[in-house]
Amino acid sequence: MAENTQYTQFELSKEFLVNLKNLIELDDNKAIKTLLKELHAADIAEILNELKSEEAKLVYLNLEHEKAADALSELEDDVRDKFLKVLPSEVIAEKFIKNLESDDAADIIGDLPEDKKAEVLSNLENIEQADDIIDLLNYDEDTAGGLMAKELIAVNENLSVRRCIIELRAQAEYVKEVYYIYVVNDNNKLIGTLSLKKLLLASTDLIIKNICNTEVISAKTSDDDEEVAQTMKKYNLVALPVIDDIGRLTGRITIDDIVDVITEEAEKDYQMISGLTEDVESGDTVFKLTKARLPWLLIGLVGGIFGAGIIGHFEGDIMKYAGLALFLPLIAAMGGNAGVQSSSIVVQSLAANNAGLDTIGMKLFKELSVAIINALILSALIFSYTFFFHESIHLTLSVSIALFSVIIFASIFGTFVPLILDKLKIDPALATGPFITTVNDIMGLLIYLSIARIIFGYF
Amino acid sequence: MAENTQYTQFELSKEFLVNLKNLIELDDNKAIKTLLKELHAADIAEILNELKSEEAKLVYLNLEHEKAADALSELEDDVRDKFLKVLPSEVIAEKFIKNLESDDAADIIGDLPEDKKAEVLSNLENIEQADDIIDLLNYDEDTAGGLMAKELIAVNENLSVRRCIIELRAQAEYVKEVYYIYVVNDNNKLIGTLSLKKLLLASTDLIIKNICNTEVISAKTSDDDEEVAQTMKKYNLVALPVIDDIGRLTGRITIDDIVDVITEEAEKDYQMISGLTEDVESGDTVFKLTKARLPWLLIGLVGGIFGAGIIGHFEGDIMKYAGLALFLPLIAAMGGNAGVQSSSIVVQSLAANNAGLDTIGMKLFKELSVAIINALILSALIFSYTFFFHESIHLTLSVSIALFSVIIFASIFGTFVPLILDKLKIDPALATGPFITTVNDIMGLLIYLSIARIIFGYF
Repeated sequence: MAENTQYTQFELSKEFLVNLKNLIELDDNKAIKTLLKELHAADIAEILNELKSEEAKLVYLNLEHEKAADALSELEDDVRDKFLKVLPSEVIAEKFIKNLESDDAADIIGDLPEDKKAEVLSNLENIEQADDIIDLLNYDEDTAGGLMAKELIAVNENLSVRRCIIELRAQAEYVKEVYYIYVVNDNNKLIGTLSLKKLLLASTDLIIKNICNTEVISAKTSDDDEEVAQTMKKYNLVALPVIDDIGRLTGRITIDDIVDVITEEAEKDYQMISGLTEDVESGDTVFKLTKARLPWLLIGLVGGIFGAGIIGHFEGDIMKYAGLALFLPLIAAMGGNAGVQSSSIVVQSLAANNAGLDTIGMKLFKELSVAIINALILSALIFSYTFFFHESIHLTLSVSIALFSVIIFASIFGTFVPLILDKLKIDPALATGPFITTVNDIMGLLIYLSIARIIFGYF
Repeated sequence: MAENTQYTQFELSKEFLVNLKNLIELDDNKAIKTLLKELHAADIAEILNELKSEEAKLVYLNLEHEKAADALSELEDDVRDKFLKVLPSEVIAEKFIKNLESDDAADIIGDLPEDKKAEVLSNLENIEQADDIIDLLNYDEDTAGGLMAKELIAVNENLSVRRCIIELRAQAEYVKEVYYIYVVNDNNKLIGTLSLKKLLLASTDLIIKNICNTEVISAKTSDDDEEVAQTMKKYNLVALPVIDDIGRLTGRITIDDIVDVITEEAEKDYQMISGLTEDVESGDTVFKLTKARLPWLLIGLVGGIFGAGIIGHFEGDIMKYAGLALFLPLIAAMGGNAGVQSSSIVVQSLAANNAGLDTIGMKLFKELSVAIINALILSALIFSYTFFFHESIHLTLSVSIALFSVIIFASIFGTFVPLILDKLKIDPALATGPFITTVNDIMGLLIYLSIARIIFGYF
């Protein structure tokens, strides 16, 4: 019965993996085929990510070509690189690339070493496919050109609906998912889009240019991928046509690629603020996890040593007024916290293209207002605490004035560093990383102890 | 010429806004209409976000109903709430809700106060629409039911392609974007999907159940929205059918809503780790920015005061061995850093549903290995530094043993807190927030000074 064929989502389990590995060891191709038959390429990729290269090879042998190709393009990058290394160029071309859409094919070929790249391309039977891939390889990965696929349905504006459907039948074989038909003029300039729904509902004698939507939102090949993502998100688009500098249709970007861009962008920012140098997951190897974590800890350590140097410089003061030592971590931490808050607000606003319409002067004024309010409230609290519990007016004044100054400094610094990085075309998220946080910690200590020296020394 | 009608993306500028506000003041409806005519609803929403409620009201008067409704549903939540408050229920029903798809309509009505909710619903002319919205309001916002829309194209499995196209013409009027046709049996159970492309290309005598894709991926109404997002992302879907507990088709979720779920989820995690309690942007008011920032700073302050208490407890030791004070900020910061790294790796892995197949025991072993390697390297470095620059073997041993212990403690603590929160169905991202970081800071100080007391006291 039909109900029983309904596809249920697959969840990879330890048992499934053990079972599969047993079958691989037994070389039981028939059982492997049966086990994998009902699975989606994305599920198979998930399985392959957990296998050794030799095991994966046997699994691939038991997949239909198209599914094998799709699974390959869904693999994690490092797993795929390892796997492709052991395959001859002919196999890569014939079994995998041949069955992929141009954008996925270009992504995979683009990651190969130069000599293998040429070999794989020359092994492709379909010259047109090779041309498409070579064309796509010219674009920077982070641009609309680097995201787009060449497969799309384009029809001339002067066709009738009837002719358009015939044209569609001819072209549709090469395009997996058709969301829109792109309407072009005689010079291949994009002039409109037509949804399949409209085509299905339109009377067959109408001319395409009279029924298509001419308010087309498009991207240029050189547009930044994050910009493209913002556009597709803002206008709720599932596909976006890409044009060249003179308006000719050159490709289309689909929403699945944009979902990946959005996810990667968010992960990159999160990684930076977490103090990780790589995209790691709990499941990764100890080596990979250590490599991702050590660099920031090292920067933190060096920063801490600098901090120790600064405190050492004021050691005499601390020996005289022991209470000073109590608030060292507090002041350092508050500077770091306030700075990260400021930077991350700017980073998120820049990422969302949502920095508002304020001028630099207004930004400074606003940031200063927020910083002053926060600083005043926190200083008042620490003032009360130290006044009642430590009874030294010198210490009380030192700590509360220092806290006030540190929050103002860190907030302003934390706001402007990402803005400046962005102006210099450097990823502003760097400002949320270890270096700036450490600078804020250290500056906090310097400000605190200097203020204390003045207050204890002169009053 | 057609080329000139091509839609270019709008970018909101200060000049545009000043111009529009002038026209609003002059009550020049004709000029306002002209200015807004070519704009997409998403652009208009962007403009409305920057206007006062009374100004926005005049802009709305000059929009066609459908665009006005779309713009309303694209507005920022707080701006929309404010605006809806000043509108009578009839207008909300007739001008806005009437022209929205059921999911957007339910989102807006769901945010209204209870009495206004009932008023708006009873003002809807179309009873079927009201029923759909009432049905959707029953689902939790964070579930597939809360995300889905009722508008979809469903056809019986026994229809011919020809009949199906007729059916499609009848239903399509009510559905803005058609990605798939859903195929159901006589009991309205979902048994397959059919793409418009396949329908266009199929011979008209075929029966739908013989050409539709029966490997359908679907969600249940009660599925968690993040799970739905993972599914659509993994399988690269633009629309996902939603079924009830006995498999009957009840709605569909489109990718634009999922893009919003992914973005919001990422923003929430980022916010937490940045120490912000609300989703704020540079452009927000001073009050909103302060409110978002102050809570974490307060927790940090209280943590710092606790830390001061701990240091105070060891004040005697610090007075005797002044060098100890130098490394207070370093130890506290390193504990905080290592803990945030661990927590954020777990949070990201949980969010990506990618925690791997490791058992709890293996996770502990792995985390411990990573922590030990990092801790050994960092301790060795701080050992060398203190040994050569501070020449006290007691201080050297205290600092390096403490650093080692603090990194191990913070890493394990940082790994397990989010895992435990997740088990308790609490958002694990909380572990990256201020409370846990502050605990790590404080524990760091306690560990450091206790170790120092033992080393200085007994050796």
